[in-house]
Amino acid sequence: MPDTRKPAGFFFPRTATGRSSIVPPPPWHYSGELLTVEYRTDPARVAELLPPPLELADEDPGAVAFLWADWQSCSDSFEELLDPVRSQYKEAFVVVRCKYRGETYSRCVYIWVDQDFALVRGYHQGYPKKLGEIWMTRPVAVGRAGPRLREGGRFGATLSAAGRRLAEAELTLSGPSETGGFVNALPMLHHRLMPAIESDGSDSLHEIVTMRGYDVELGPAFHGEPKLRLFEAPTEELDRLAPDELIAGYYRSVGTSWRGGTTLES
Amino acid sequence: MPDTRKPAGFFFPRTATGRSSIVPPPPWHYSGELLTVEYRTDPARVAELLPPPLELADEDPGAVAFLWADWQSCSDSFEELLDPVRSQYKEAFVVVRCKYRGETYSRCVYIWVDQDFALVRGYHQGYPKKLGEIWMTRPVAVGRAGPRLREGGRFGATLSAAGRRLAEAELTLSGPSETGGFVNALPMLHHRLMPAIESDGSDSLHEIVTMRGYDVELGPAFHGEPKLRLFEAPTEELDRLAPDELIAGYYRSVGTSWRGGTTLES
Amino acid sequence: MPDTRKPAGFFFPRTATGRSSIVPPPPWHYSGELLTVEYRTDPARVAELLPPPLELADEDPGAVAFLWADWQSCSDSFEELLDPVRSQYKEAFVVVRCKYRGETYSRCVYIWVDQDFALVRGYHQGYPKKLGEIWMTRPVAVGRAGPRLREGGRFGATLSAAGRRLAEAELTLSGPSETGGFVNALPMLHHRLMPAIESDGSDSLHEIVTMRGYDVELGPAFHGEPKLRLFEAPTEELDRLAPDELIAGYYRSVGTSWRGGTTLES
Amino acid sequence: MPDTRKPAGFFFPRTATGRSSIVPPPPWHYSGELLTVEYRTDPARVAELLPPPLELADEDPGAVAFLWADWQSCSDSFEELLDPVRSQYKEAFVVVRCKYRGETYSRCVYIWVDQDFALVRGYHQGYPKKLGEIWMTRPVAVGRAGPRLREGGRFGATLSAAGRRLAEAELTLSGPSETGGFVNALPMLHHRLMPAIESDGSDSLHEIVTMRGYDVELGPAFHGEPKLRLFEAPTEELDRLAPDELIAGYYRSVGTSWRGGTTLES
Repeated sequence: MPDTRKPAGFFFPRTATGRSSIVPPPPWHYSGELLTVEYRTDPARVAELLPPPLELADEDPGAVAFLWADWQSCSDSFEELLDPVRSQYKEAFVVVRCKYRGETYSRCVYIWVDQDFALVRGYHQGYPKKLGEIWMTRPVAVGRAGPRLREGGRFGATLSAAGRRLAEAELTLSGPSETGGFVNALPMLHHRLMPAIESDGSDSLHEIVTMRGYDVELGPAFHGEPKLRLFEAPTEELDRLAPDELIAGYYRSVGTSWRGGTTLES
Repeated sequence: MPDTRKPAGFFFPRTATGRSSIVPPPPWHYSGELLTVEYRTDPARVAELLPPPLELADEDPGAVAFLWADWQSCSDSFEELLDPVRSQYKEAFVVVRCKYRGETYSRCVYIWVDQDFALVRGYHQGYPKKLGEIWMTRPVAVGRAGPRLREGGRFGATLSAAGRRLAEAELTLSGPSETGGFVNALPMLHHRLMPAIESDGSDSLHEIVTMRGYDVELGPAFHGEPKLRLFEAPTEELDRLAPDELIAGYYRSVGTSWRGGTTLES
Repeated sequence: MPDTRKPAGFFFPRTATGRSSIVPPPPWHYSGELLTVEYRTDPARVAELLPPPLELADEDPGAVAFLWADWQSCSDSFEELLDPVRSQYKEAFVVVRCKYRGETYSRCVYIWVDQDFALVRGYHQGYPKKLGEIWMTRPVAVGRAGPRLREGGRFGATLSAAGRRLAEAELTLSGPSETGGFVNALPMLHHRLMPAIESDGSDSLHEIVTMRGYDVELGPAFHGEPKLRLFEAPTEELDRLAPDELIAGYYRSVGTSWRGGTTLES
Repeated sequence: MPDTRKPAGFFFPRTATGRSSIVPPPPWHYSGELLTVEYRTDPARVAELLPPPLELADEDPGAVAFLWADWQSCSDSFEELLDPVRSQYKEAFVVVRCKYRGETYSRCVYIWVDQDFALVRGYHQGYPKKLGEIWMTRPVAVGRAGPRLREGGRFGATLSAAGRRLAEAELTLSGPSETGGFVNALPMLHHRLMPAIESDGSDSLHEIVTMRGYDVELGPAFHGEPKLRLFEAPTEELDRLAPDELIAGYYRSVGTSWRGGTTLES
């Protein structure tokens, strides 16, 4: 592919200076809070979200993680941190596992965020992002208006899109945990897609990619008793992934960086 | 390219039924109001936005159109019209002209919208969309709180993003017009881009495409005296396209449909 | 009451120039589109919203109007019309009738708007406004993406607050109408309330007021077949006003001005 | 004043159950993060915001505090904490001091918040709240995308309203502090206002009230080097309070509760 990067910019719009790009160039650094609810659904409902040659994971194929995250992120310039409208966003997302060429991966099947830079950055990484309204209880250290990050702390998390409540979770912390869950713990396997402009049913871009963060720094993890409710909506299918059995919930602070991934198939 | 559309859906996420797609399948129908300000800037500032082999238009190469639009849109199911959060959006965008293989085209260089389906639908068409807050005065037929769509009617239009005012326009109608302007009147020439997930400076998708609507239905056009102010922002370069000379302003209702475009180069 | 309007301003904050007031001084002019669904509910559910000495209306005491409105409004300076973020807003509201001192009035019992100036202007008039997300289908004159304002035109309207869908309506126009409904057609009777800062159960402000617009200018009205769905929410009681019987739906453009009302009791 | 609280509810709308009230009944509990910039402006610009008989403070009469706060709040039911759209909000506000009947008070002269319950709760307390878009950098404990709460940590804070940037601050922490500032540290003296519905220039409600929180719990405070920029806007007068001299900046976690205040004059 020839160098067609004149005008400049990591993403569009490409311009004289490149600073208009909707996403600044990687690496991207992230610090945030994650609330995770893991549960089991009918494995057939996971399978229907896996395009061939992806297959269900061998073990616990119906396992699902529903995650809420409150992020601060920035580029290597770190300038976004001082103009936080450019660095803060929330997201809620659903992760399953799948098998591809004999390896097991995590895979995000649904995701909502509340800022455009996070939306398009996600497209770069293969996340099928939509806009949504995401809320998560914050732990506090003083006052009565919030849980403490310890046993007994109760957290709520909600997701809405297009003015409809899509999901609600609650988590009551039971104690410290070794992990933050297993469903979202593997390298991600995503498709990156762009239908042909001819709108003829073919894709101009159709890649299978994998990626993971680096320089991961984890805060102490907590596990707890989760609740989860998923609701119907005319343009969503979350209710097809209804919980048959709740596994556990987790709360943890996470720091990570991301520079790029690997194209496995295109 | 093989049929990789299992699971189903025009765009992502691809699912069991396809109805979760962030954009429903084309054709898409549009009915809206357009306010256009045409002006001349330094042609060098237009040229810096044109990647080779695109060149400046031969005639009036510094001509720019700044447009505000208030749209209602839907798929062939028309169901979005009864749930208007799925059909209404506003946008503000900047169009220049360029020459490619001897033909002159219109080209959108900057654009902001206020809904996710419009954002991603734009990516399909090659528009470099960001989220913004767009406002346009509406003409009214009764009461004092609005202009009439006739000589003397005064309209305002504003654009903000990330909590910063980026552009403001005013238009005072002078009378009926044969046209709605010339800068945005040609077939569009756009790039469709996706950086490689390796983040190595190459693009996985890098197409030059052209497209235009069909079944265009136009309401009566009005021309008038425009004003336009562009403001600085740390992640924008609108002020590089500062007006040297205002040409004219227009107001018109437009209906159109869109099914697909043509890949010229990939 | 002494002149305490130094600093200046119709509403707060009161300042050196008065221009920071969240609402500019009356008169206020309005031009907008109204979609109305009239229905009957259990009159006991209306009665429970009427503080003594208000009583149910003698005729059709369970009649309710659920209205959606898309407004443009301005002060006598008209400057807000050119900065439409200061003039446009949508609202959805529920009106019943009541009897007070032998007269029958209209009374707004629930209302949501999407701008702060409209919220506080409503408090001045006695409307119990909350913030919400309101959408209404717009009639169009060109293209396929919208109904025409004539028999067969189909309109949708929705209300959400706090990320939850609260109400949805549909209206299919049947033909021209003499009226836009009867429930919201009388002078308004509202309470203006402010609990004492002592939070002791008393009100510092507790007025019964009446008001109506002047210089009303009406566009042609249409009646039609309505549908209406009301949903539960933890901080709302809309579902207590569930429809037993739909009466009719209406669509009309309305212009009006407002300068002040009359205190009946304080 | 007779008991007119049938229907029920602390604030409006008053209903059968009272749970529709836009604000739940006090006490209200708050836990949040405060970033404060203290500076001196021309005392005449403070004086013009003080209605008689309020006077300038005797000492440092031009001192101003510009504060950003990220709150979680709830009622005594604590249920809002599990549905955080009902408990979280941000605000930015400007505080000066004044003298009244020989005592010195703090007084909020401008304030913006991003939720309706916080807006109206503020009206109960005499805060002249408007809606705005408020952002604050969050300290983090892991990862690179955020400052640590210690010497060298850099924080940004911004305020926008109606799509215009109104204020920007930066704070670089220098070290621990005994206090979080002096301007916002006294009991508040506020006016509670409601213009008469006759719109005749008189107020139906015009009280001078005072209040303060209880059960205040403070986290460790940090002081630092601040920057502050205020911008012009057509409906704001923030730029009249332009800094002549910066005093200091502070960052601190605060917990407090509030039950009621005292009417001093009505």
